Amino acid sequence: MSISAPAATRFLLDQQEMPTRWYNIQADLPFPPIPALHPGTKQPIGPQDLAPLFPMELIKQEVSQERYIDIPEPVQDALRIWRPTPLRRARRLEQALDTTARIFYKYEGTSPAGSHKPNTAIAQAFFNKAEGTKRLSTETGAGQWGSALAFATNLFGLECMVYMVRISYEQKPYRKSMMQVWGAKVVPSPSELTQAGKKVRAQHPDSTGSLGIAISEAVEDAATRDDTKYSLGSVLNHVLMHQTIIGQEALLQMERAGAMPDVVVGCVGGGSNFSGLAFPFLRDRLQGRTKTRFLAVEPDAAPSITRGKYAYDFGDTGEMTPLVKMHTLGHGFIPQGIHAGGLRYHGMAPLVSALVEHGFIEAVAYPQRTVFDAAVQFARTEGTIPAPETAHAIRAVIDEALKAKQDGSSPTILFNLSGHGLLDLAAYDSYFAGTMSDVPVPQAQIEELVAAL
Amino acid sequence: MSISAPAATRFLLDQQEMPTRWYNIQADLPFPPIPALHPGTKQPIGPQDLAPLFPMELIKQEVSQERYIDIPEPVQDALRIWRPTPLRRARRLEQALDTTARIFYKYEGTSPAGSHKPNTAIAQAFFNKAEGTKRLSTETGAGQWGSALAFATNLFGLECMVYMVRISYEQKPYRKSMMQVWGAKVVPSPSELTQAGKKVRAQHPDSTGSLGIAISEAVEDAATRDDTKYSLGSVLNHVLMHQTIIGQEALLQMERAGAMPDVVVGCVGGGSNFSGLAFPFLRDRLQGRTKTRFLAVEPDAAPSITRGKYAYDFGDTGEMTPLVKMHTLGHGFIPQGIHAGGLRYHGMAPLVSALVEHGFIEAVAYPQRTVFDAAVQFARTEGTIPAPETAHAIRAVIDEALKAKQDGSSPTILFNLSGHGLLDLAAYDSYFAGTMSDVPVPQAQIEELVAAL
Repeated sequence: MSISAPAATRFLLDQQEMPTRWYNIQADLPFPPIPALHPGTKQPIGPQDLAPLFPMELIKQEVSQERYIDIPEPVQDALRIWRPTPLRRARRLEQALDTTARIFYKYEGTSPAGSHKPNTAIAQAFFNKAEGTKRLSTETGAGQWGSALAFATNLFGLECMVYMVRISYEQKPYRKSMMQVWGAKVVPSPSELTQAGKKVRAQHPDSTGSLGIAISEAVEDAATRDDTKYSLGSVLNHVLMHQTIIGQEALLQMERAGAMPDVVVGCVGGGSNFSGLAFPFLRDRLQGRTKTRFLAVEPDAAPSITRGKYAYDFGDTGEMTPLVKMHTLGHGFIPQGIHAGGLRYHGMAPLVSALVEHGFIEAVAYPQRTVFDAAVQFARTEGTIPAPETAHAIRAVIDEALKAKQDGSSPTILFNLSGHGLLDLAAYDSYFAGTMSDVPVPQAQIEELVAAL
Repeated sequence: MSISAPAATRFLLDQQEMPTRWYNIQADLPFPPIPALHPGTKQPIGPQDLAPLFPMELIKQEVSQERYIDIPEPVQDALRIWRPTPLRRARRLEQALDTTARIFYKYEGTSPAGSHKPNTAIAQAFFNKAEGTKRLSTETGAGQWGSALAFATNLFGLECMVYMVRISYEQKPYRKSMMQVWGAKVVPSPSELTQAGKKVRAQHPDSTGSLGIAISEAVEDAATRDDTKYSLGSVLNHVLMHQTIIGQEALLQMERAGAMPDVVVGCVGGGSNFSGLAFPFLRDRLQGRTKTRFLAVEPDAAPSITRGKYAYDFGDTGEMTPLVKMHTLGHGFIPQGIHAGGLRYHGMAPLVSALVEHGFIEAVAYPQRTVFDAAVQFARTEGTIPAPETAHAIRAVIDEALKAKQDGSSPTILFNLSGHGLLDLAAYDSYFAGTMSDVPVPQAQIEELVAAL
């Protein structure tokens, strides 16, 4: 079908063009798998160590070396509620920047929860349901992940228990409301429902919580109840794999747009939206067919790649998870209360970290005010108001486009617009009011925390 | 292209399939046009009477008898930021209801502002810009319209001044934030900026405002400034026409789905989202090709069609607008503070009213708790959390589907999911907390107000 003038700016796929397999990058890595370690024995963990927390199918996916894994029909069916998602060319932004770069973005904000998170939430809910799980426990920061899992568990008839970082629970009531619309139970973390929560509250009665603490609570909840398993929204290999539906769709759409990216950009907290877009393109680079660059963008307030250490560390504050090798600021790190709650994590997905170490992924960190400059510029040109997390990617994209203008180069840039900001408008208020602060993390704080690793 | 199993539930159009003309139902009406009257002379108003408020092109559209009017290229280009919008089949809802009905919905929540409102906001911004307008004034209730116009004026480089009903300004800060992200100026109404506002504040210092008051302020603002025109988000003929892009797309998509609606449903405040979906289908009925039913759904708290009078009345509280013939509760009517702020209007679009009078459109009214029952059932089956306004349509659709189950009939139902509820989650909180009230409008109140008409 021909594209009439004006040139197309939006590239859609039909429902039946949605990918039916996940891409597992572990099959193509030019280095051996790096095992997770048991926190007690320091030996590589086996499937049985993870069985109290995850259904066996997800444990298998976590270590699978198969290049492609079929997406079960009921998962496809649920994903089709909003997938495939659109790919757009940001012509209005290009014009505003007067850049020679071409900017494309994959828009994941069309899911009912408003972000990419349901891509894995639905898969996890399905595999749990299939193995008889009745209830899932999880943690959430600002609430993107909790609302995605509430949406998914509701579809598959599972109960959902969400430990929500207390400061977000109090300051961002509307994501909590969303979870309740979808039938989930939400409690502020640290709570009195777990030993991990009680311990923190005993020491710090006024604790506003952190993602690391909430993970400890959700893991303990699952480990101590027979009917319950645990669900994590990022970091793990199988979670990143479930997100590769994004990049596979984007590959088809970029072909349709007659453009292939020179650089692929995404924000990183745990790493899942970035990996979901990047890995299918990275496959082509690992297989020697392209020279595409990959740029992970993190917040100055939680600079795990750019300022952390590549070492074995716990995923949580309470030292309950396996030890995984990753870029980390130390599991005791409590980031400042930046508005991009989804990026406030001390660690990084082990797959992303290893690919950084081997030179396939670059990273950059930004303070939040310059990130919101970019967010507002994007909203005023392209229309969509981005989530604060996503706005980190947009900052980097704009800087790449401005650099291209100076260089006289014409790169094609692709980024993941991982979620909209309609539940983050208070952050924009703070930006306009001039009350948004940026305080770099003291080097001494990082050094102290990583020294123990 | 064939539709593979499982049966398609989402019907997309390519960007170049977006309609390039608006459908003007005035060309097909089986009754003569009903003129608006000058409030002073009671004579039909002419173009010059409206010239202080609207650009000439929109005044022409208001009375045009042409069946189709071309959509200018820059308007098409802006609409393509999110259009065409998806049409979906609500299979999960059908299953939950165990109904023999087939339920389809057109989803307008994918626009950056989250509703159908930008369809006309963009057209109005363009025609104003083309005729030299520098600034647009408007009113908004809960903020759907104000945010749409802020989005559109920003795209075309116009200033935007929004008078926002004070109670919403205070209780729903996030739509105000959205407008500010897009660069609009927002003030609570009644304000001290207009004579109309000052007059209300002098009499009622604690006034929480109403749509009728805010319209008076916005009209006065435009009428008293050379650089400013006025923009209305519903009611007027040209506004309804700009929304017909919805129904024209839906016609194509329903053809693709192999189904034609037996009944078309939409919520009505001023009438624009309902008309936008319905009029292209109504054309086929007016031309004798179908027997489709059309069902307008209003709130119990502002039942203009079901309990109002069909009479000439003002569009605003301050008696500044022309007199239009419509179903009205009287321009002094102040509806209760229901959560569906967009439906809190005393009148109805004259075209909708006339079509009701001639038997082409039916109407039904619902109290808000039963509307939210439907909203939650929809969110828990189809995923998307609907706006409170839209939930009125969903209530009626569910009732139609349940009736079909009893009748043993298998109707095809199509409704307009005119907007998402992500900025209305406080309303859901109120529903779950059991604090949502329903008090029918006293008959004496309506009788007193309409007696003067």
